Amino acid sequence: MADHKYVYFFGAGKAEGAADMKNLLGGKGANIAEMTNIGIPVPSGFTITTEVCTYFYDHGRTYPAELKAQVAEALAKVEAVMGAKFGDPTNPLLVSVRSGARVSMPGMMDTVLNVGLNDETVKGVIAKTGNERFAYDAYRRFVNMYSDVVLGVKAAHEKEEDPFEVILEKKKHARGVKLDTELSAQDLKELVAEFKAMVNERLGKPFPEAPMDQLWGGISAVFESWNIPRAKSYRQIHGFPEDWGTAVNVQSMVFGNMGDDSATGVAFTRDPSTGENYFYGEYLTNAQGEDVVAGIRTPQPINRTKGAPEGMRTLDEEMPELYKQLAGIRETLEKHYRDMQDIEFTIQQGRLWMLQTRNGKRTPAAAVKIAVDMVGEGLIDKQTAIKRVEPEQINHLLHPMLDPKAKRVKIAAGLPASPGAAVGQVVFSASDAEAWAADGKKIILVRVETSPDDIRGMNVAEGILTSRGGMTSHAAVVARGMGTPCVAGCSEIAVDYANEQFTAGGVVVKQGDWISLDGSKGEVYQGQVAKVEPKLTGDFAAFMDWADEIRTLGVRTNADTPHDASVARNFGAEGIGLCRTEHMFFEGERIKAVREMILSDDIETRQKALAKLLPMQREDFVGIFRAMDGLPVTIRTLDPPLHEFLPHVDNDKDIDGLAADMGLSAAQIKAKVESLAEMNPMLGTRGCRLGLSFPEITEMQARAIFEAACQVAKEGVKVIPEVMIPLVGHVNELKLQKAIVLRVAEEVMAAAGVKVDYLVGTMIELPRAALTADQIAQEAQFFSFGTNDLTQTTFGLSRDDTGKMLAEYVASGILPKDPFVSIDEEGVGQLVRIGVEKGRSVNAKLKVGICGEHGGDPASVDFCHRVGMNYVSCSPYRVPIARLAAAQAALRNN
Amino acid sequence: MADHKYVYFFGAGKAEGAADMKNLLGGKGANIAEMTNIGIPVPSGFTITTEVCTYFYDHGRTYPAELKAQVAEALAKVEAVMGAKFGDPTNPLLVSVRSGARVSMPGMMDTVLNVGLNDETVKGVIAKTGNERFAYDAYRRFVNMYSDVVLGVKAAHEKEEDPFEVILEKKKHARGVKLDTELSAQDLKELVAEFKAMVNERLGKPFPEAPMDQLWGGISAVFESWNIPRAKSYRQIHGFPEDWGTAVNVQSMVFGNMGDDSATGVAFTRDPSTGENYFYGEYLTNAQGEDVVAGIRTPQPINRTKGAPEGMRTLDEEMPELYKQLAGIRETLEKHYRDMQDIEFTIQQGRLWMLQTRNGKRTPAAAVKIAVDMVGEGLIDKQTAIKRVEPEQINHLLHPMLDPKAKRVKIAAGLPASPGAAVGQVVFSASDAEAWAADGKKIILVRVETSPDDIRGMNVAEGILTSRGGMTSHAAVVARGMGTPCVAGCSEIAVDYANEQFTAGGVVVKQGDWISLDGSKGEVYQGQVAKVEPKLTGDFAAFMDWADEIRTLGVRTNADTPHDASVARNFGAEGIGLCRTEHMFFEGERIKAVREMILSDDIETRQKALAKLLPMQREDFVGIFRAMDGLPVTIRTLDPPLHEFLPHVDNDKDIDGLAADMGLSAAQIKAKVESLAEMNPMLGTRGCRLGLSFPEITEMQARAIFEAACQVAKEGVKVIPEVMIPLVGHVNELKLQKAIVLRVAEEVMAAAGVKVDYLVGTMIELPRAALTADQIAQEAQFFSFGTNDLTQTTFGLSRDDTGKMLAEYVASGILPKDPFVSIDEEGVGQLVRIGVEKGRSVNAKLKVGICGEHGGDPASVDFCHRVGMNYVSCSPYRVPIARLAAAQAALRNN
Repeated sequence: MADHKYVYFFGAGKAEGAADMKNLLGGKGANIAEMTNIGIPVPSGFTITTEVCTYFYDHGRTYPAELKAQVAEALAKVEAVMGAKFGDPTNPLLVSVRSGARVSMPGMMDTVLNVGLNDETVKGVIAKTGNERFAYDAYRRFVNMYSDVVLGVKAAHEKEEDPFEVILEKKKHARGVKLDTELSAQDLKELVAEFKAMVNERLGKPFPEAPMDQLWGGISAVFESWNIPRAKSYRQIHGFPEDWGTAVNVQSMVFGNMGDDSATGVAFTRDPSTGENYFYGEYLTNAQGEDVVAGIRTPQPINRTKGAPEGMRTLDEEMPELYKQLAGIRETLEKHYRDMQDIEFTIQQGRLWMLQTRNGKRTPAAAVKIAVDMVGEGLIDKQTAIKRVEPEQINHLLHPMLDPKAKRVKIAAGLPASPGAAVGQVVFSASDAEAWAADGKKIILVRVETSPDDIRGMNVAEGILTSRGGMTSHAAVVARGMGTPCVAGCSEIAVDYANEQFTAGGVVVKQGDWISLDGSKGEVYQGQVAKVEPKLTGDFAAFMDWADEIRTLGVRTNADTPHDASVARNFGAEGIGLCRTEHMFFEGERIKAVREMILSDDIETRQKALAKLLPMQREDFVGIFRAMDGLPVTIRTLDPPLHEFLPHVDNDKDIDGLAADMGLSAAQIKAKVESLAEMNPMLGTRGCRLGLSFPEITEMQARAIFEAACQVAKEGVKVIPEVMIPLVGHVNELKLQKAIVLRVAEEVMAAAGVKVDYLVGTMIELPRAALTADQIAQEAQFFSFGTNDLTQTTFGLSRDDTGKMLAEYVASGILPKDPFVSIDEEGVGQLVRIGVEKGRSVNAKLKVGICGEHGGDPASVDFCHRVGMNYVSCSPYRVPIARLAAAQAALRNN
Repeated sequence: MADHKYVYFFGAGKAEGAADMKNLLGGKGANIAEMTNIGIPVPSGFTITTEVCTYFYDHGRTYPAELKAQVAEALAKVEAVMGAKFGDPTNPLLVSVRSGARVSMPGMMDTVLNVGLNDETVKGVIAKTGNERFAYDAYRRFVNMYSDVVLGVKAAHEKEEDPFEVILEKKKHARGVKLDTELSAQDLKELVAEFKAMVNERLGKPFPEAPMDQLWGGISAVFESWNIPRAKSYRQIHGFPEDWGTAVNVQSMVFGNMGDDSATGVAFTRDPSTGENYFYGEYLTNAQGEDVVAGIRTPQPINRTKGAPEGMRTLDEEMPELYKQLAGIRETLEKHYRDMQDIEFTIQQGRLWMLQTRNGKRTPAAAVKIAVDMVGEGLIDKQTAIKRVEPEQINHLLHPMLDPKAKRVKIAAGLPASPGAAVGQVVFSASDAEAWAADGKKIILVRVETSPDDIRGMNVAEGILTSRGGMTSHAAVVARGMGTPCVAGCSEIAVDYANEQFTAGGVVVKQGDWISLDGSKGEVYQGQVAKVEPKLTGDFAAFMDWADEIRTLGVRTNADTPHDASVARNFGAEGIGLCRTEHMFFEGERIKAVREMILSDDIETRQKALAKLLPMQREDFVGIFRAMDGLPVTIRTLDPPLHEFLPHVDNDKDIDGLAADMGLSAAQIKAKVESLAEMNPMLGTRGCRLGLSFPEITEMQARAIFEAACQVAKEGVKVIPEVMIPLVGHVNELKLQKAIVLRVAEEVMAAAGVKVDYLVGTMIELPRAALTADQIAQEAQFFSFGTNDLTQTTFGLSRDDTGKMLAEYVASGILPKDPFVSIDEEGVGQLVRIGVEKGRSVNAKLKVGICGEHGGDPASVDFCHRVGMNYVSCSPYRVPIARLAAAQAALRNN
């Protein structure tokens, strides 16, 4: 029987491994093998499999008997390919020893470079390179790194200084220099000796000189590092099993700092900023990889496609043959990986080596362009293109951004509550916002938190900044609905209404001062930062068309005005999933009639107030129905607690005005306002409970809806109203409200002589509704999951009160994510699933959607797809995101 | 093939039916048959089966061909038994025609009496009775009733007067009399003729004279009445199927008003007030059943066992033979039905007829005594005895009651929030309550609603009255816990703090005025109403012992003090299921330290405050552990939102005091209090969220628990602490809090050198906890369902805000019952079931209980039994109720 194979060689265009052997060779090992096999020049080496790691831990940290011979055999092949010999004093081969698990665990495990150096082989390096300083610099780095990683010689605790650093500083002090680079070859040579002496003293045994001892020490160190605490907890957090193990990659060292015929660089196969299809990259002659990144020297562009700084040469000019080879590799890699690659290369004494290739990170615009271009080039199909763009990236394409190149002074950070950039002068009240905006000023409304009273001020603001509240606070929800940038819950600012200013750290910002917001990042900047407008390209339109071809889930929008409805329709919304009638109540003179309605003590007075509201609501619906000609419009009957419409009890001006209007005393108004106050309004008299207490409100709203529908139908508009009863917990609630809607609809249509198709359904936003969905579905023609409220009740968490707590929960890992951002599949999702299943069990044709904030969150959209919903509904600006997320969900799950 | 049997005869000691034929004969028919068969003299008759009703509706309102002959045959038997002939002008038999479904549908369907009377037979009645007035009175009543019920001659709409009443009034007016009884035989005879004339005119055909026509008309009318709207909706509400149908009972009429040898009476086989085993009853000579009930004449006692009014004779004196027969029937019925019977009898011309027997209603005390006595007499077994007492009845035995005989003036009614009677002087603030009580006064605390600030005042009050809040409002919950009578949500009173008075209707009650409360009924009386103290008899103890033998469900108590714990233990509690540590925080000086803890800005200050609390909490636990020696004590860590402990921001006195204590400004204190305010405190920072934000609080509480446990263990007390983490929504919350408890427990026990067995578990009071119980159970040793909060979140209802709404929901049938009183099995119950099943799926030995208010509600206890819980926990005074309910649940479900 042949020995079990534990070691996989790669080099000279041939590797024993391949890309699909990640489990055995780890991600890095498999990728190196793949590159080797497709003819990319990769420094030769070998991979010790993950099975050895498992064996190592299963057998008291020993190795399989076969391993030693297999390593020796592979090393011999490497020596042959590289034309050098490990441990040879005249022509030494140096190697790196690196970990490589199935999945990347960045920075978790150990690496050792330059293995094979000792007092003998260093002379061979000097001879080969003619560069003594280079050789000793590599040597002293190796002794330092090896002693630390393999031998464990390091600072014993936080307050102790690193012992190598101590020696190095002493040396620099003695030489009267500041930088390592100012030390001479002799200095570095001395450091090697001093390092070794210190190690010997600490360990009571000398630093290993034999290269093979060094190699096996490195291999063991990598295997040991699989089990160090930080790696273990990383695996726990990510749910990676302990028995995966890591592979070990032993690979020849190459150097870009061996002279002017050496170089090192980083490149992208296409422009990662714009996506343009040209070869983009930077390099430095006679340098190490760190030098490119560190920014001490200005790197050179690899070509002149987009120009180059004056007097600077490019790689295609300096080393045209090598550039040609590199450009060829670019072609090979793109054809092979069918994606834009981020590559690292080193030129060692005129020879090109590829060290790494991986899919390149890119801007949202580049992501779309590359995906669309690659379909055009026949590299990928549309499905693949759709998978290539993160839905959240789309967000950046739709909103103005702060110019990435503009200078800025950040003064605070909060939650990225509504994306986009805003620049304006600070005001601290909604009424100031209105006044200033009326004067043509651009303003940013800064509040501790917002309330429905602030709606008009929010509407004219460029941006909104609050010091309290979470991602689903009033400010956040309303701002996203309006497409207005918002930073919410910015607890780093202290708002001082009395003095009309806020402080952020040491900075005081007064009314009228300019600030800039980045709502996508949740950041606040002092002064005016330049903005750049988004450009929606033809590529984008084509890309979204493909998404629509692929997805099976419908995408609607939450919109309360004809304007929002039009915006959303332009973004591809296929209907309105949630039209909140109460937002209409705040506009202009309406609030007066609304307050009269609420404060009425008898049904006659209330009906008089409702009669004033009826024509206004009807006009709202007429506008929305026209904007959504041919598409369904889901209208929710009155939902919020009534006191939201009333002035605050301390607001004497409003109270007095209202008292005068209604012919009552201020005290009477105050008493009524106070009597409507609730301990927990979220769990109080709201939703259908209002319509059950005051059926005349539901009746007025139904009348407004159907009168508007009949009116536009006569104009030739195709109108599809879907009346939605909120906060149903028991089927009887729906039954009673539905009866009113049906009666009014029939009355109105009979009077108008018009027949309009319509549906009556309900929101499922209470646990009890989901649990009894089989009963509710007997009365409902559609369900719309209100997952904001469902999350609040399932968790017993008010989003208004627990924003800070939730952030702490997510930060400390108590919750994997904010359940108001991405649906909590484990808990809330169970209820959604129960609701859908029970609902369809009695009504197979039940239309099911979602209209909570989750409708625009990609992970939640995936869930909605899996659970079999008909559509998601989200704010207008998230419609394209939801369309893409729905397409990806279809690809992922079908 | 023999004809199918549709008619069942009964009479002369022999019936074709029996008690177990309710589905076929209806409840009344089966019961009459049963009485006949056991030798009770019942007026003879026959029952037409429910199958005929079904046939009637299935075949276009026609009868089976066989029916006519079977009715005729049965009628002939009746005639033979009764010695009279239906329609015979000289010796006529009169019958009643009554409905009778499987279950009683009181007042829903029709009845016709005195069928068989016409101008001929009335003469026979006169001849037989020698009483012309009696005969014509019966005749005119028959014509009226038959015309109404069978012929449909009645007022056509609400505003029309009843046409028979019109004629009758005219007659009385003509005769110059006021009462029907003042009309002569001739007058009544004229009325018959006038009634018939009117009927003839209205219907265009004469009133049916032929007795057989009358009989079949009556039978049809009864079958028709199965489908009248009120009967249909009654069945819908109660879920009775349409195809059950009703039977028709045709039975000979007997009369107690035929002279001095006739009488009519009502009796109970034992005293329904005390349960004493003697024959209790009342009767009237020469009277109809209505006369006994109407109270125009004072009825006579049937014997002198408990005395009789002076000069009044008793049945055993007036008619000793008949009394002897009646007493024999009493024996027979009790032996047969093995329960106390409520019987109706009529003596017609010296002959005794039994008209009805049914299980008699009784007082709670009587219920227990009768059940226990009957076991002693060998009539029933213990299981049956246990089934005989409604658990809620027990409640009345444990609390003082208002003397049922005392005069009283009711001024308002609210919710029966905490049972028992209270008499005291009205005060309107907790501090007045304390001051007056310190002066030895008995006071009743009247508030709009109560808050934790009022605890000390509530503690010294005889009773509590609030104008707002539901059955689970703060006042209600705390009062029940204290065993203090409480009427809550009494919206009929208007509290005026400024003038220290309240008004109820027209009555003004000022501070210091006396009122009386009946917390069991929810009623408020003016002045001092006499009270009677409950007497717990040996019977009660024996009865409860049997309940304990039968039940499998444990019963614990919710108790926060050693006193409550002792009370509950005396009532049979087998441990504490919920000890709320926060209630301890309100007492005396503690609140100061608690406030310091809350207002601390840094952990050091907080720990200093906690250090003050530690010894106090430890002492609390020492007392409770001693009281519960040998029994488990479940202690919940801090639960309520912190602002509940703080003074109200408008309470300048408290704010200033606190500021002085803490060396801060009043403004600082106010700012802190305001910053802790929450929009929805129920969904805010409370429960384990507190312990996660401030682990040092959990640590202090754990230390107090285990130091107390170790201390009493050394005294020889067997202590079994169960530490309960509240409001867990995600397993990670429990994990982190549990780690603190375990660490502190081990530290404390190691230091004390004592080993105490303890458990750590959690409350399941959020939908998410129930849905993810399989994860949570991996960390929990027990679950305790907090169904108050679970109901709030499942319904999305705050019990503080929706008391009035829920009452309306129940009144209008939207909800079948208040889900805070009896657990909502359909919704909340699903979550409980999911929680238990998922929990046990990973931890088969998981101990499961309930500690919400539902733990003391019999219907909910039954649910807890069915769902497989280990125990229920309820307030001390409900422990006996829960014990009995648990026993009944075991009998009902096992």
